[in-house]
Amino acid sequence: MRVPEPVAAVRRAVREALAAHPGARTDATNAPFAAPTRTNGAFVSPRRLLVACSGGADSVALAAAAVHVVPGRVHGVVVDHGLQDGSGAQAARTAALLRELGASAEVVPVDVGTAGGPEAAARSARYAALRAASRAHGSTHGGAPVLLGHTLDDQAETVLLGLARGSGARSLAGMAVWDPPWCRPLLGVRRTTTRAACGAAGLEVWDDPHNDDPRYTRVRLRHEVLPRLEEILAGGVAPALARTAAQLADDDAALATWADARRGALVDADGSLDAASLRADPSAVRRRVLRVWLADAGVAELTDAHVRAVDGLVAAWRGQGAPPLPGGLEVVRAHGRLRVLAAPVRARGAAGSVHREAPAPPPPTPETP
Amino acid sequence: MRVPEPVAAVRRAVREALAAHPGARTDATNAPFAAPTRTNGAFVSPRRLLVACSGGADSVALAAAAVHVVPGRVHGVVVDHGLQDGSGAQAARTAALLRELGASAEVVPVDVGTAGGPEAAARSARYAALRAASRAHGSTHGGAPVLLGHTLDDQAETVLLGLARGSGARSLAGMAVWDPPWCRPLLGVRRTTTRAACGAAGLEVWDDPHNDDPRYTRVRLRHEVLPRLEEILAGGVAPALARTAAQLADDDAALATWADARRGALVDADGSLDAASLRADPSAVRRRVLRVWLADAGVAELTDAHVRAVDGLVAAWRGQGAPPLPGGLEVVRAHGRLRVLAAPVRARGAAGSVHREAPAPPPPTPETP
Repeated sequence: MRVPEPVAAVRRAVREALAAHPGARTDATNAPFAAPTRTNGAFVSPRRLLVACSGGADSVALAAAAVHVVPGRVHGVVVDHGLQDGSGAQAARTAALLRELGASAEVVPVDVGTAGGPEAAARSARYAALRAASRAHGSTHGGAPVLLGHTLDDQAETVLLGLARGSGARSLAGMAVWDPPWCRPLLGVRRTTTRAACGAAGLEVWDDPHNDDPRYTRVRLRHEVLPRLEEILAGGVAPALARTAAQLADDDAALATWADARRGALVDADGSLDAASLRADPSAVRRRVLRVWLADAGVAELTDAHVRAVDGLVAAWRGQGAPPLPGGLEVVRAHGRLRVLAAPVRARGAAGSVHREAPAPPPPTPETP
Repeated sequence: MRVPEPVAAVRRAVREALAAHPGARTDATNAPFAAPTRTNGAFVSPRRLLVACSGGADSVALAAAAVHVVPGRVHGVVVDHGLQDGSGAQAARTAALLRELGASAEVVPVDVGTAGGPEAAARSARYAALRAASRAHGSTHGGAPVLLGHTLDDQAETVLLGLARGSGARSLAGMAVWDPPWCRPLLGVRRTTTRAACGAAGLEVWDDPHNDDPRYTRVRLRHEVLPRLEEILAGGVAPALARTAAQLADDDAALATWADARRGALVDADGSLDAASLRADPSAVRRRVLRVWLADAGVAELTDAHVRAVDGLVAAWRGQGAPPLPGGLEVVRAHGRLRVLAAPVRARGAAGSVHREAPAPPPPTPETP
């Protein structure tokens, strides 16, 4: 019997993601989901692979493909958000479908709070439950991988949402295929394909009414902006957004490598950073060095404005004051080095205990580009 | 008399762009627009600064600010596209306005072709005329700088257009403030500010009907997509897009530096590239090395698909065939090095004259991330 193309496409995507990401492999053999092997005389059970399943076309197609690719190892997790009447019965039907497919399955009811709005609260409850399931099914080597059904279309929406934040490559890089314990094999697969795969396999799927609720920002981007962009720009917008995300993720990873190396060279045992040497680095590297250095120093909730202010102490030093940071901290420049200190509780302008470095002479005129 | 804030904002933007970009300074002194100086006994006339002016609010506000910042040096260039009845008279009125402001001015009529559609044809005729003016007003040191009135809103539209191409940081980085001979001081200034500046200064501006013509992709993004995004994402979209462009331009510049250094180390005098060593570099660096190396080897009209195919010879070498490139060229891997060669005219599969390297053993399993 020939396998319908959409079904084959989803299986291929799952196979490739698992093969390319050894974190999703078994502990014992480091080969993709090999049979249990004897190590030091004891059987080591390979990890189970979890699939988060809402009952929608994306995650049902994903679960069916996972069962085909690694039979006998798939465990479905159905989160019941309890936000609609009958959500428990719907979750139970989805778990039953997963068992019919050949997976084990459980329903995990969660309490959705209100922090950050309905979308964010549901997401945060869902991810917490999935993370707990990953730990419960993991081994001493770490949590079990959790496959998520995000598609190319979800990725395109994520990039558009990231644009609005304006924080550069990090927010535009979208979701990663592999970000332990999460694994997203379908980021290159269209939503139309997962739906067709379910149809071809005769799998009944459930359309979450939240997916069409215009109170959700993502839903409005999906229905109001992407089709309009698609029409104006003559097609191919969602794949272009997904391609952009992949390239920017590559760029960001390369720059992170560079910044890590520089941070290693410039941070002393006392945690201070050699600002005078960092000045010669490109701004993209400087900002990444500073962001990680500040986070390591315990500064939480950093914004780009904070990082830019601290970069001013490096790249445009003229004796300016210490930029204030969240949590009552500040960055002080002295003797060419930066330090994160508790901001002194004192009247503005009073003498501090740290010797502030005299401003350097103005930089030489840069050469004509 | 107090200067109205929008007028001050535009002047500030022009002053900062000129100060930060020494390419827009005078030849003789490298100081921003100093008085003519005596060098080797002869007066060297400082460069003139050209301002491209359509008569619209953006470029009129820009011209007025430039005349204020560097009085006596500004020359306005009004391109008459000849696309509407009375365009010559409109151009003459704009030139007269520029002279009233204290600039010299000329009208340059152009013939707009049809290649690439009406938007692209008008743009290409306009830029050719401005480039010629830059050369005509330049010195032996190069063309005169040409100030362009692109605003933050134009930058946001450019980023959205770039998204549709999906070619990563290069297309999302938008327009640069300084890209000789072009200088765009207003990329951080909103369109509402230039309009307010003209209003406050009593300058009459002309609204080009093309700016509202829905046959233009950019116009539809401006009127149909950006306001919708603005509403759905609760504001701040245009500045976020502009901020994104600036950060991605920084990222791209840093990665270009890295790739240049690697290219210098890996390309031999015979033009061949050390693929075996390049393999260890991050993909963002590999692709940039390959893109410039291929362009240097004379490969024109490279797409990302070409670069990815050639990267396959570096990062996923398994003895695959030479990827075909535009212009009857191909890239061949032999003895661990890549070379660009004329593609042999022969039946597919016949023996080539170049020894093809045997595939390397499969790469070791990468470590768990």
